[in-house]
Amino acid sequence: MQYQLFYWPSIQGRGEFVRLALEAAKADYVDVARGDAAKGQGMPAMLALLADTGQEHPPFAPPILRHGKALIAQTAAILHYLGPQLGLVGKSASSQAWTHQIQLTIADMVSEVHDTHHPISGALYFEQQIAQSIERAKAFREQRLPKFLDWFEAILARNGANTSAARLHLVGARLSYADLSLFQVAEGLQYAFPKAMRSYLPRYPMVQRLHRELATNPRLAPYLASPRRIAFNQDGLFRCYPQLDA
Amino acid sequence: MQYQLFYWPSIQGRGEFVRLALEAAKADYVDVARGDAAKGQGMPAMLALLADTGQEHPPFAPPILRHGKALIAQTAAILHYLGPQLGLVGKSASSQAWTHQIQLTIADMVSEVHDTHHPISGALYFEQQIAQSIERAKAFREQRLPKFLDWFEAILARNGANTSAARLHLVGARLSYADLSLFQVAEGLQYAFPKAMRSYLPRYPMVQRLHRELATNPRLAPYLASPRRIAFNQDGLFRCYPQLDA
Repeated sequence: MQYQLFYWPSIQGRGEFVRLALEAAKADYVDVARGDAAKGQGMPAMLALLADTGQEHPPFAPPILRHGKALIAQTAAILHYLGPQLGLVGKSASSQAWTHQIQLTIADMVSEVHDTHHPISGALYFEQQIAQSIERAKAFREQRLPKFLDWFEAILARNGANTSAARLHLVGARLSYADLSLFQVAEGLQYAFPKAMRSYLPRYPMVQRLHRELATNPRLAPYLASPRRIAFNQDGLFRCYPQLDA
Repeated sequence: MQYQLFYWPSIQGRGEFVRLALEAAKADYVDVARGDAAKGQGMPAMLALLADTGQEHPPFAPPILRHGKALIAQTAAILHYLGPQLGLVGKSASSQAWTHQIQLTIADMVSEVHDTHHPISGALYFEQQIAQSIERAKAFREQRLPKFLDWFEAILARNGANTSAARLHLVGARLSYADLSLFQVAEGLQYAFPKAMRSYLPRYPMVQRLHRELATNPRLAPYLASPRRIAFNQDGLFRCYPQLDA
């Protein structure tokens, strides 16, 4: 049964964490809002879903996954659902719970990244909150960013399966959606904070190695080189404003 | 087997969502950081857990639940784990997933509430970011708060089991941890934004009714009246600063 992903069509955003999982698994899916409105897809289809007052389990915001009768919002919840179906998580309940916990912490980090360019309101433009963004981004870069990177590095270092592995993983000895999400975070942080990341990354050799390995992973590289991969831009979650990376 | 909750001992904070579930289920648990250091509890026990470099699945931040071999961080993940054990979630996978999705959205809202008094940095005092807090709180009160309340009200209205029920529930016909969390959010919002909530609440009769019913629920009222319930205060998540509720 085909997966239907509903997400903003012109940005990577939070939807990209779901796209990466679907793509790495070569899943049969349609990125609805990027489809053709004449075929019942496109933005009208997503807006109709968001406005559907007959929906018993209304999604609060995209990304949203529809799969048969299931309709799931919240990035981490979508990945928790997809993981076992796509073979992108371990089989045990404890392995699935730990992978989900990592994803939830990535979600928290991603919200903090968003707020570096929108510290006052998501309804205002960045240009209307630049001074506050500079303050928040400084606190993020100096205090929060290394705390998150420390944590990812510690998880990679403490995963016994990594000791002699050809490829690093956050959980056990297999590729999980959390690995794909950490790859995405590493990509995004280097786009948004190139200067800070150049200074930080050498202290995080395992995070760096996981990022490098996934960039050339045969399950991921074709997608990254395809037109399906939207480029980072100044409307997304990770934005490159030099003032915020000073 | 006894549950061990690790959370900051002097605030409700995110830990309160877990405390409410454990209390409503009359679970056997210990609130470790509030215990006696001489008995191996208290803050030293929590700080030792956070600093434990031998921990294969290190928690990023409290709250943390230890239960036998399980060690789980992230409020929503803890409740997802506890729900079935405490009888505070439906039995079907789809009911558990929906309850979890609601909790994840509550977690997002709670982070936004936190940032109304800490829009720049959690490492600074409120007094160091008052001007920015006033701006962020205004945007939260005017745009985000009604959006979240709309969503909770819609869920309550669309839950068919509520049509003729003596008590309202977010999911199906039984009390879930999500109901307890919405109660806590309604409490906290009325503490933090009394003026805004007085104006909003009449528009949300079902949210109001759920809050009122739970305040006198025999499973919850004894806890709320006990010394185990920490009072709201100016160190927690929900804080009452009149400037932010102008």
